[in-house]
Amino acid sequence: MTITITAFERSPDAGKGLARDVRVRWALEEVGAPYRVRLVSTSAMKEPPHLAIQPFGQIPTYEDGDVTLFETGAILLHIAERHAGLLPGDAGARARAHSWMFAALSTVEPPIHELANARLLENDKSWHADRLPVVEDRVRNRLRQLSARLGDVEWLDGAFSIADLMMVTVLRRVKFGAVAKKPEGAGQGGTILDEYPRLAAYVARGEGRPAFKRAFEAYLADSIHKA
Amino acid sequence: MTITITAFERSPDAGKGLARDVRVRWALEEVGAPYRVRLVSTSAMKEPPHLAIQPFGQIPTYEDGDVTLFETGAILLHIAERHAGLLPGDAGARARAHSWMFAALSTVEPPIHELANARLLENDKSWHADRLPVVEDRVRNRLRQLSARLGDVEWLDGAFSIADLMMVTVLRRVKFGAVAKKPEGAGQGGTILDEYPRLAAYVARGEGRPAFKRAFEAYLADSIHKA
Repeated sequence: MTITITAFERSPDAGKGLARDVRVRWALEEVGAPYRVRLVSTSAMKEPPHLAIQPFGQIPTYEDGDVTLFETGAILLHIAERHAGLLPGDAGARARAHSWMFAALSTVEPPIHELANARLLENDKSWHADRLPVVEDRVRNRLRQLSARLGDVEWLDGAFSIADLMMVTVLRRVKFGAVAKKPEGAGQGGTILDEYPRLAAYVARGEGRPAFKRAFEAYLADSIHKA
Repeated sequence: MTITITAFERSPDAGKGLARDVRVRWALEEVGAPYRVRLVSTSAMKEPPHLAIQPFGQIPTYEDGDVTLFETGAILLHIAERHAGLLPGDAGARARAHSWMFAALSTVEPPIHELANARLLENDKSWHADRLPVVEDRVRNRLRQLSARLGDVEWLDGAFSIADLMMVTVLRRVKFGAVAKKPEGAGQGGTILDEYPRLAAYVARGEGRPAFKRAFEAYLADSIHKA
């Protein structure tokens, strides 16, 4: 049964790999499952055929025989349950990997999402400049907690799992989206992620995995990327 | 093996049942699994013993023999996998229930969370009054899509599942948090949820389940509720 996923025909992320199909491509590359991609235009996403499989008009979706999924969390869980290599076998470790995957989506991503909204949707508003630091500090609060817990280990809990895959893709939104406070004498300045070197290194480890690189190249090749 | 969950010693939700332990209590009541509750003070949540099981200093957590979980999504998934009644057996239906549970957390809740932040954390800011309608419309956008998809069915996809349990608890945050635009001649006014009668009825169906009522009563009895 061929796996089919959907992705943006024209990705609005300027080639940064922040579109959510990258998460699914990465998971499929990690387990070595072949897949094909159906590109969907922004207007087609809001039409009945796509809404029938994605009620909120988003990508990606995942189709595999009789199983149709939406939401990257559900898709990653499904891939990890069908293929070895993305979830530990031990019940306790599996429970912790599940917890971390949900933490990436429900606890770490919401302030990052709010910051992205502030920067993308509210940058012409009268309150933009005054409010931005407030929202950035909400992101810092979560990154500080995450960095403290990660410490000097390689992955969140033992071997690389869908929890790391999800957390790294969530943190990549900070890497490309949120500019750091520039300390005195700083040059170009980095992003908020650079304020947490352990997390920046963690993201770099994820991006360094061969499966991530293959997924990223495929994403670049498939979609048209707008700035 | 006795299941132990954590909850607020003093809940900041004024007795509305919005604290996340209600989700877990509800799931345990649906499957008839006994549990005990360990109450945690707000200060103890930020101390090492609690951070060891919840890295972000939140409640609830779930302990059951060798398995320790955090994040309500992971906990609900675990309960549904260990007990019958909260996930369909058919693979396709199970995949859809997973998708909807993640949609509740990753697509429907983020704008609701942002609205709660605006109302609770930014209500003394200069931009509060101007920005509130912008954030409310982001919530409306998701509720409109959800209401269109739900239509006139009882639950999201066939029988009641953890997807409904999660979605109803997410929507209860709108019910108690976001005030609706008052149409001309309206009296007291309701909340944004009332603008979507199908969703208001869906939430009422969830709250009407005997297991929800037992969970809510237990939550009320266990914690001290601050306004």
